[in-house]
Amino acid sequence: MEASGRSFGDGGRIVETAFRVRYAETDAMGVVHHTSYLVWFEVGRTEYTRAVGLPYREVEDVGVRLVVVEACAQFHRPARYDDLVVVRTTVGEGTKATLTFRYEVRLQWDGTLLVSGHTVHAATDLSGRVQRMPERVRAALTGRAPP
Amino acid sequence: MEASGRSFGDGGRIVETAFRVRYAETDAMGVVHHTSYLVWFEVGRTEYTRAVGLPYREVEDVGVRLVVVEACAQFHRPARYDDLVVVRTTVGEGTKATLTFRYEVRLQWDGTLLVSGHTVHAATDLSGRVQRMPERVRAALTGRAPP
Amino acid sequence: MEASGRSFGDGGRIVETAFRVRYAETDAMGVVHHTSYLVWFEVGRTEYTRAVGLPYREVEDVGVRLVVVEACAQFHRPARYDDLVVVRTTVGEGTKATLTFRYEVRLQWDGTLLVSGHTVHAATDLSGRVQRMPERVRAALTGRAPP
Amino acid sequence: MEASGRSFGDGGRIVETAFRVRYAETDAMGVVHHTSYLVWFEVGRTEYTRAVGLPYREVEDVGVRLVVVEACAQFHRPARYDDLVVVRTTVGEGTKATLTFRYEVRLQWDGTLLVSGHTVHAATDLSGRVQRMPERVRAALTGRAPP
Repeated sequence: MEASGRSFGDGGRIVETAFRVRYAETDAMGVVHHTSYLVWFEVGRTEYTRAVGLPYREVEDVGVRLVVVEACAQFHRPARYDDLVVVRTTVGEGTKATLTFRYEVRLQWDGTLLVSGHTVHAATDLSGRVQRMPERVRAALTGRAPP
Repeated sequence: MEASGRSFGDGGRIVETAFRVRYAETDAMGVVHHTSYLVWFEVGRTEYTRAVGLPYREVEDVGVRLVVVEACAQFHRPARYDDLVVVRTTVGEGTKATLTFRYEVRLQWDGTLLVSGHTVHAATDLSGRVQRMPERVRAALTGRAPP
Repeated sequence: MEASGRSFGDGGRIVETAFRVRYAETDAMGVVHHTSYLVWFEVGRTEYTRAVGLPYREVEDVGVRLVVVEACAQFHRPARYDDLVVVRTTVGEGTKATLTFRYEVRLQWDGTLLVSGHTVHAATDLSGRVQRMPERVRAALTGRAPP
Repeated sequence: MEASGRSFGDGGRIVETAFRVRYAETDAMGVVHHTSYLVWFEVGRTEYTRAVGLPYREVEDVGVRLVVVEACAQFHRPARYDDLVVVRTTVGEGTKATLTFRYEVRLQWDGTLLVSGHTVHAATDLSGRVQRMPERVRAALTGRAPP
């Protein structure tokens, strides 16, 4: 499924979120507008944080924001209005300052890969100042114990 | 142009804002998605407040928000990708607590009426509590001197 | 709940659709942008058509489009990121040429009414020409037998 | 301005498009939602095609679509509501089947770099089948004479 020897998730947790394509998400090509998939990545990210026990709303409640510093997507095949799609989300490697989420969007009924991509997130306080990624946040999202 | 005897603007100021239709604003019907026109109303509102000397950003800077409490639109004809459209914005009647903006979206080259509508706005503080519409705001937006 | 003596749905079918608020649907006021609710109306409409046995995708497949000719919404209270909301959708009165959908958006956990509204739809062919509302479509959506 | 020795545009044509940030483009962080910048890339692309004499609308009119197969963006600093921003667009290298557009989003008044990125496009017919990039399209967009 991937060019590299590693498979998606690479042993880490994968959280799946399914929903239907909205009409508003399509464009005049008759298929889903490419930016809609990045909104879906965000939906997957929200559900990932809930599944690992640290809902993103709680992250913000303690004064930390995970801002997007990079987003990339490869568009393999288009989704269409009313398709039932699933976003698969996992957390990959990062740096001291960042965390990387990786995503796959697939048709639910047959698993066809539609879009793959990743986003890189830095931690900031509520005023937007970059800070070190809090260990509690990193530990919760990567599933690794804090040092 | 209107069913009633009154014409659009009714003697008050009309501010025109022109721009091109974005691909992202279309949907699978091949034309502009109906909710995009309400985003354009908001663009027209922003430019109206700038034109009368009280940019909306400054309204928020002094701790007042004009929240939308009602929005209505009639869709007469569709706009298409790359069309040059113009939003005509005016401020109509209101109550002690509200202000009403009215809008027309037209094709720029021949004036064809595409969409008409209005939004009603209440004043709140930054925490969302409704307050009386500040006279300075009402006077600036309606062009009438404060009492 | 309504100013008139009639209750929402008025005896007709009500279809409920629940989902979570997306981050992309919020704006700088910290709450959901008002146009997002109209996208949710559309989500409710899609699920209504599925529930009554005539999914909108099939309507388009037979060459009929239900285009939005009017949309109105009243915004009572704001939804926030990650809130679980429910859209309640019903079909009301119409004319020979139109059908009216009515909507309520509520917080799921306590039923607080956030937004109410309606959309009016005309039938067109795939080229956008208005036609009489097909009886099969009207019967399916209103739950009344064709004459 | 760039880590590599090459400067943006690398000698090719750069087309600038300026506009104001819309309220609808912000999110609950108080700044522009990251997916909005990709919509702006598309606006820049549209204006680039117009500036080089082959408006994208005409590309579609002759039965060719330039579909997005990859999109990447780096987010350096956030834009805010009502900021006047400029999108700088250029066409870079490509393959036989693809064209790459590159973008910078800057604050207009002082040139601060907000976002940079690129999109890769493949040519398809109107049914979505990938085809070789038509030489007329490639020549017009890259500014190089067809072979």
